[in-house]
Amino acid sequence: MKKKVVTIGGGTGSFMLLSGLKEYPIELSAIVSMADDGGSTGVLRDELGVLPPGDVRQCLVALSETPERLRELMNYRFQEGGLEGHSFGNLLLSALEKITGDFGEGVREAAKILNVHGEVIPVTLSDTRLYMELANGKLLSGEHEINVNTKFEQVGVKKVFLRPKPKANPLATKRILEADLVVIGPGSHYCGIIPNFLVPGIAEALRKTKAKVVYNCNLVSKHGQTDEFTLENYVAAINRLIGSERIDFVTYNTALPPKHLLKKYAAEGNIVPFLRLEEGRPYCVIQADLLSEERIVRKREDKIAATRSFIRHDSKKLAKVLMLLLEIGDYENILKDIV
Amino acid sequence: MKKKVVTIGGGTGSFMLLSGLKEYPIELSAIVSMADDGGSTGVLRDELGVLPPGDVRQCLVALSETPERLRELMNYRFQEGGLEGHSFGNLLLSALEKITGDFGEGVREAAKILNVHGEVIPVTLSDTRLYMELANGKLLSGEHEINVNTKFEQVGVKKVFLRPKPKANPLATKRILEADLVVIGPGSHYCGIIPNFLVPGIAEALRKTKAKVVYNCNLVSKHGQTDEFTLENYVAAINRLIGSERIDFVTYNTALPPKHLLKKYAAEGNIVPFLRLEEGRPYCVIQADLLSEERIVRKREDKIAATRSFIRHDSKKLAKVLMLLLEIGDYENILKDIV
Repeated sequence: MKKKVVTIGGGTGSFMLLSGLKEYPIELSAIVSMADDGGSTGVLRDELGVLPPGDVRQCLVALSETPERLRELMNYRFQEGGLEGHSFGNLLLSALEKITGDFGEGVREAAKILNVHGEVIPVTLSDTRLYMELANGKLLSGEHEINVNTKFEQVGVKKVFLRPKPKANPLATKRILEADLVVIGPGSHYCGIIPNFLVPGIAEALRKTKAKVVYNCNLVSKHGQTDEFTLENYVAAINRLIGSERIDFVTYNTALPPKHLLKKYAAEGNIVPFLRLEEGRPYCVIQADLLSEERIVRKREDKIAATRSFIRHDSKKLAKVLMLLLEIGDYENILKDIV
Repeated sequence: MKKKVVTIGGGTGSFMLLSGLKEYPIELSAIVSMADDGGSTGVLRDELGVLPPGDVRQCLVALSETPERLRELMNYRFQEGGLEGHSFGNLLLSALEKITGDFGEGVREAAKILNVHGEVIPVTLSDTRLYMELANGKLLSGEHEINVNTKFEQVGVKKVFLRPKPKANPLATKRILEADLVVIGPGSHYCGIIPNFLVPGIAEALRKTKAKVVYNCNLVSKHGQTDEFTLENYVAAINRLIGSERIDFVTYNTALPPKHLLKKYAAEGNIVPFLRLEEGRPYCVIQADLLSEERIVRKREDKIAATRSFIRHDSKKLAKVLMLLLEIGDYENILKDIV
């Protein structure tokens, strides 16, 4: 029987992760954050009253076995007129939601059209928004506002929550409970990863499942949001939301990005998360070269590529490490093998 | 070897015709008028600078072997916001034109995605507009204006033309030359049928081809445009543009539509084309029951169905007659068999 792997994340990070994992003979389910409300997705939410398609789209494309042209089409963004900024894939998902009357059903139809191997599961089918309350009492409304406001780390984050209170997609909790391996991240900490754990029921499923749980630590911190985060802090933040020290493994990249990229990132205030080697951690850190050497070419049509990070995971390297974790049961041996 | 059938037409009429023909083991090529500039298509032409996708979309859907859901998706029209009125299929074709940089290539890619059996061939890949000069000197610009202006028959049509002067799609002329049967219409006379023959090269190919040529006479005349047209007039108008009495057969429906529909149509001034039985016609009129008994249900999402005619051809009945024409070589026998 094929091993069951469940990923939990958001947009670009999940795209990378799934692109690597899909090459292995596993049963793959991608649970996707539903807090996006910027850009094309935000306009569609506001104007059509649909659920946010952006992150789901990226996961569908990652798992699609269709020709390159159809995948390119899904990410194509219109450049002019009333359609400006809309990605074609977002329009596909919104139209299917309208036709079927149900976002989950629409995603399944899109998966058929795109010949998707595996499942893409919205973490919730409730129409909900992400909010962040800061220590000074200020309330940031929506993922877009949170992502644009880059100074909240200094002020201090009091609380992150979803309103109205969503219900977990039953398929998401089911897949977590059945999983052999659950893979969290990489992705935007506050906007791509955390919102999944704010959906009631997800944390409980993670506490109950017998699956091993891996967290893929981000390669760089986000300036103004997670500058001061060490690897420990990332893990602690997620474990706190799960309500148990549930993370068994953490993958951590040890390869140094090229100087010119480090310089570029440093200039923008982004730093590589620091690995604090504390004694007695309840999880195992897998240190390996996980860095992509591919140069991301900016495409004018694809604003995602142009505005997101260029220090990236290599999907093949990361998948290889995760598959080792899935196959080998014994922590200590892996540690010796890989570190 | 499979017989080669080429259809020439526009939107809804071609959709019906192709839906019936695709059930037969023939090589089917649909040549499609490119003069549409109303509604969603008009906005896309203006804002994105793409070629008109609307009529091509309908032909692709007719020939698609994909599940019903994908065909429904292609015709889905957004109802709200900046996307209002756009059909999803039009957005697909426009995005593919943008990605490939070529409308013809985009249509071929869409055909792959939609698992189209047969070919859909835009009659031209030139960006051209339809104009109508009236006897009183007034110039109507664009298919949309011509279709909305319903009084030109009384004034008299001096000339219909395309500007800038388009080039024929080489694939269109090639398929006409190779064809065993060319099927013209049904469809809007001035806006769906005629514009095909205004593209230089198409008439010449029709004069040269050894194919039999059939014209499917419309079931009703369009008020203000073709009220006074007899079957003879329709045929003469097309033969005049071809530059030869090229039409071999004309199909003509003899079944009477239900009274309530006739009443409804009469109230709007639309009448059933009159069959004038002149001696010495250079073509054979196939009189048969070609009427659809299906009730078209208005769908709010599909404005096409809601605004177009409800007295319709039955695609199966029409295809059966056309296949007889293809199989049987001798005019006289067919005439005896069918009339």
